Amino acid sequence: MTDTAREAPTESTENHGGSGGGPAIAEPTHEAQPARRRTPGEEARTLVAAANSGSLASLSEDGTPWASIVAFGATDAGEPVLVVSTMAEHGRNLAREPRCSIAIGEPVPEGEDPLDRARVTLAGHVIVPEGEEADSALDAHARLYPFARGNATYADFTTYVLRVERIRWVGGFARMSTVEAADYATADADPTAAGAAFARRHLNDDHADSVLLWAQTLGGYADALEAACEAIDRYGVDIRVQTPRGQAPVRVGFASPAQSPDDLRGATVALAKAARAWTPS
Amino acid sequence: MTDTAREAPTESTENHGGSGGGPAIAEPTHEAQPARRRTPGEEARTLVAAANSGSLASLSEDGTPWASIVAFGATDAGEPVLVVSTMAEHGRNLAREPRCSIAIGEPVPEGEDPLDRARVTLAGHVIVPEGEEADSALDAHARLYPFARGNATYADFTTYVLRVERIRWVGGFARMSTVEAADYATADADPTAAGAAFARRHLNDDHADSVLLWAQTLGGYADALEAACEAIDRYGVDIRVQTPRGQAPVRVGFASPAQSPDDLRGATVALAKAARAWTPS
Repeated sequence: MTDTAREAPTESTENHGGSGGGPAIAEPTHEAQPARRRTPGEEARTLVAAANSGSLASLSEDGTPWASIVAFGATDAGEPVLVVSTMAEHGRNLAREPRCSIAIGEPVPEGEDPLDRARVTLAGHVIVPEGEEADSALDAHARLYPFARGNATYADFTTYVLRVERIRWVGGFARMSTVEAADYATADADPTAAGAAFARRHLNDDHADSVLLWAQTLGGYADALEAACEAIDRYGVDIRVQTPRGQAPVRVGFASPAQSPDDLRGATVALAKAARAWTPS
Repeated sequence: MTDTAREAPTESTENHGGSGGGPAIAEPTHEAQPARRRTPGEEARTLVAAANSGSLASLSEDGTPWASIVAFGATDAGEPVLVVSTMAEHGRNLAREPRCSIAIGEPVPEGEDPLDRARVTLAGHVIVPEGEEADSALDAHARLYPFARGNATYADFTTYVLRVERIRWVGGFARMSTVEAADYATADADPTAAGAAFARRHLNDDHADSVLLWAQTLGGYADALEAACEAIDRYGVDIRVQTPRGQAPVRVGFASPAQSPDDLRGATVALAKAARAWTPS
């Protein structure tokens, strides 16, 4: 139900990852401009950077994997920092068995399907940081949860850093990937993420004609009748188009990556200019 | 950081569960009327009934507890029903090791602290239901996720029911409890829950004087200066008051439990009547 396709079944014994039904997807009318996407590592880092809590899986004494909701702040390397008490079951679990993982989902806008949201699992083991790492880890957590500085001084609390060894990212329907630990550690979170929701609404509310033109030109769907921005990120815009031949997802890319939330405005202005200048080849 | 107090520390070696600092809580000026509360079992059932997804902790082949976000629908006994694929790691995990748990949190209103929200962990083991139970389990899931009926026919999908053996409920700061499996199974979800958010806003926006009067009379704080409804449920209203002596939480109870979201209106009207009729004893 999560890592999985959602089309209607066609045969009762078919593995759902095989060919499936689902709505007709229209092919492009011409070749779209190349459009960069965030790597799975960047997607994972972006989710982690935007989150302030997640779900921890630790191992209880009786052998049952134990799910609990935890607060965390992430280090510059994207390692979650937990400050947990042995008064809580997960705190006792981590003290006994450091192997664990954290699932992090993107916030779900009201009225939207929680299964369409992106999510990531970071698996590995927790360590108790020492020296300088202990300070920077607590700083990372306390940026989001200032009272953790006080809690961390209690005898029953421990500050842990999750050493991330295995990463599984799911971007929604049919977008998922395993990410190597090294790729995760070195990837950047999207610096425009905090402005994406606003920019998406603004494009759909006030610039729907522009979005349609981008899809009709750079995006490869000359016969698009309607277009809606589904997402925006540092590298470009995801659009859903309706054509007389069915609907389709379209990606249009910025000429250069946006570097901040405010930068999305300039990037979309440049995109509009490129779309107006576009001619069929 | 989750099951834990959040007051400032007083001693560096003190267990945080001991005496702590924190804002002054004013004592009542007179004895409050008795006010029923939901049992921890009812709290847990209410959270589960309102949720459509949670975080599963399953055990990966390498021994790492694996956190993932899953869709579920609950049976009439409050047992989560999952429909998962072996194409997903959690699906392979459950097929190999049925012990698992699910953490469920209440939805977090925008701008509110995710750590103040209530949450529950249901731990036990999954079984593959048979016969009539298989039908009713899939029905429970498909009420929320209709496409699961199709998915369940694929060979890689399995429908599981979580047999709940151990329940840990956390209601927020200093409200938490372990719930016995039998108490969980027989408790009711709050039938008014769907109307609680609206009723709370309505009381605070349009009936703040009433809420203050309830606190001053039935609630035991004659010198309350301000009062805000923090929560409402089938049995009564949680109020936060400000007095010249500090602030305090106040509970006032309905004469009889509300049976539906619409019923909250009548229950609060009766409460207002009782408050006006109240006289110091």
